Amino acid sequence: MTDARFLLACRRQPVDTVPVWIMRQAGRYLPQYRETRARAGDFLSLCKTPDLACEVTLQPIDILKVDAAIIFSDILIPVEAMGLALAFNEGEGPRLQTVRHRDDLASLHIPDPADETGFVLEAIRQVRKNLPPNVPLIGFSGAPFTLASYIVEGGTSRRFRHLLGWLYEDPGGFSDLLNLLADTVIVYLKAQVEAGAQALQLFDTWAGVLSRRLYREMAMPATARIVSALKGTGVPVILYVNGCSPFLEEMAATGADVISVDWRVSLTEAEHRTRGAVALQGNMDPMALYAPTKALRKEAVRVLEQAPSAGHIFNLGHGIQPDAPVEAVQALVEMVHKEGRREP
Amino acid sequence: MTDARFLLACRRQPVDTVPVWIMRQAGRYLPQYRETRARAGDFLSLCKTPDLACEVTLQPIDILKVDAAIIFSDILIPVEAMGLALAFNEGEGPRLQTVRHRDDLASLHIPDPADETGFVLEAIRQVRKNLPPNVPLIGFSGAPFTLASYIVEGGTSRRFRHLLGWLYEDPGGFSDLLNLLADTVIVYLKAQVEAGAQALQLFDTWAGVLSRRLYREMAMPATARIVSALKGTGVPVILYVNGCSPFLEEMAATGADVISVDWRVSLTEAEHRTRGAVALQGNMDPMALYAPTKALRKEAVRVLEQAPSAGHIFNLGHGIQPDAPVEAVQALVEMVHKEGRREP
Repeated sequence: MTDARFLLACRRQPVDTVPVWIMRQAGRYLPQYRETRARAGDFLSLCKTPDLACEVTLQPIDILKVDAAIIFSDILIPVEAMGLALAFNEGEGPRLQTVRHRDDLASLHIPDPADETGFVLEAIRQVRKNLPPNVPLIGFSGAPFTLASYIVEGGTSRRFRHLLGWLYEDPGGFSDLLNLLADTVIVYLKAQVEAGAQALQLFDTWAGVLSRRLYREMAMPATARIVSALKGTGVPVILYVNGCSPFLEEMAATGADVISVDWRVSLTEAEHRTRGAVALQGNMDPMALYAPTKALRKEAVRVLEQAPSAGHIFNLGHGIQPDAPVEAVQALVEMVHKEGRREP
Repeated sequence: MTDARFLLACRRQPVDTVPVWIMRQAGRYLPQYRETRARAGDFLSLCKTPDLACEVTLQPIDILKVDAAIIFSDILIPVEAMGLALAFNEGEGPRLQTVRHRDDLASLHIPDPADETGFVLEAIRQVRKNLPPNVPLIGFSGAPFTLASYIVEGGTSRRFRHLLGWLYEDPGGFSDLLNLLADTVIVYLKAQVEAGAQALQLFDTWAGVLSRRLYREMAMPATARIVSALKGTGVPVILYVNGCSPFLEEMAATGADVISVDWRVSLTEAEHRTRGAVALQGNMDPMALYAPTKALRKEAVRVLEQAPSAGHIFNLGHGIQPDAPVEAVQALVEMVHKEGRREP
């Protein structure tokens, strides 16, 4: 199992060809996902029913032939377990009870993973039983800054007014929230590894709204604390930030094994700036999936050419869109496996 | 007039104190703007009525004591004049007739500024008559890539699916659109200078969605062509991109006199990466305006300390939000003038 090409690439060891998976590969663009989702009823029920979460986790393995599975869940699951009411209203995105002041932190607790998010662990165990032996399973969590953004804004935001307002007004109180989230993420991810996750990804999706200084002072220490606490598990940690170009160096300094890079900077530049000390994941523009095959191939080959010779996991620079054409994704996986082949 | 501190800073010459203006300083956060806007009826009528456009352009000069005025208009005005139907429906943002294929370019023409956007030039003339002599007037236009984004998407977008789809599928056709837009912007901005604009800003607001490579291959050449064509006018050109950190070097290479930097990278890093060859504008996080005065001052002072000793124009890293507190903006301008004072 340890020689699955995905895990080898995470550790910058030689591979037969470049491994590939797709962020949000279990998702709405797949008809099979939509069918399971309809059976589940609402989105949260899908996340909380291990049989169904397992089913959608496995779908892209057969359909796309990707080299890793990622457990199907939502980044707000541990946040709900901390004591905040969560709802997904159709077509609206998440709505979350808000915390906007240090005095409100006392109402939150660090959830016990087995007692309060046991359905995630059960789904992981089921997926592991059903995965082909050469396909590792990735567990995941939101990173503290991104989780904080949902908690403070009460949902998805474009402006992050309350989040940044709190951060400028009371950086100490905001740091307390980040640390509480980091502690939550640590026990949550350790439990995922115990349940069978063979790699972990931290999604700091919204940290790109931060200046390099604030990333360094706020988001990075909380993330570094998590990475450090997970070292003992022996599984590689991947760190993703959309809009990461201002602070690639800081991302590498968190100690993460793999940096997942968006499409705005080339992997050549990312390798140079991180001094080749980490593996790189990424970084094709998800919008290239709408291009004709010839143009798609050109983009895929460009990414492969710009990647380091060892330690590259092909992926998109951001999650796949809900209306992406499945055939293009299938073609992409095939292209990466063919064009990424290494001479023996 | 040439010794107005704003123009001196554009040319990296010594100033008594750091000049400051605010992107979207004539806007909804000002009660006086909302009053004029109500008299105009709809947003486009406000843009197209020189008396009223002049009135809102002048408002922030008295209220905020900023060092430059910027003509009140909309970046889609020249695009409408090219032959595309434009509407602003209340609370919805712009809706624009779309062009998504090279065959549709023939339906567009380069508008004659005096005949087809004469109201902008008349507003510029009126503002110049009414401005204090030490306050220069900035003219502006959208840069080609950002104008193209509205034309192809039909309005504001978050995903730019059609835009990027065209770009990947037919880069040559997409370049033709950019060049047509560049030619439109050139005559439009030259007419603004003839009418009295003393500096020009190009807003490439959405170019931050591009990879560094695509910025270099697509957005940059069209922008560089405009900057080069404007050299003969003798007025400084400011180039703004939100999300500019991947390609600060390329922005400087357009030949622009001033690079307007968002809040994600420090001006110290921007100065280093542009080798001190351009003046810098920016770059406080607009969200710091919601912080208490003490925290706001800290952020303002940080920007001043990170800025080059000559050639800094203080501004936000992005346009001011419609609900920003006016007193905070007034306090900010005062802080910059006080803390930015240079020893004689």
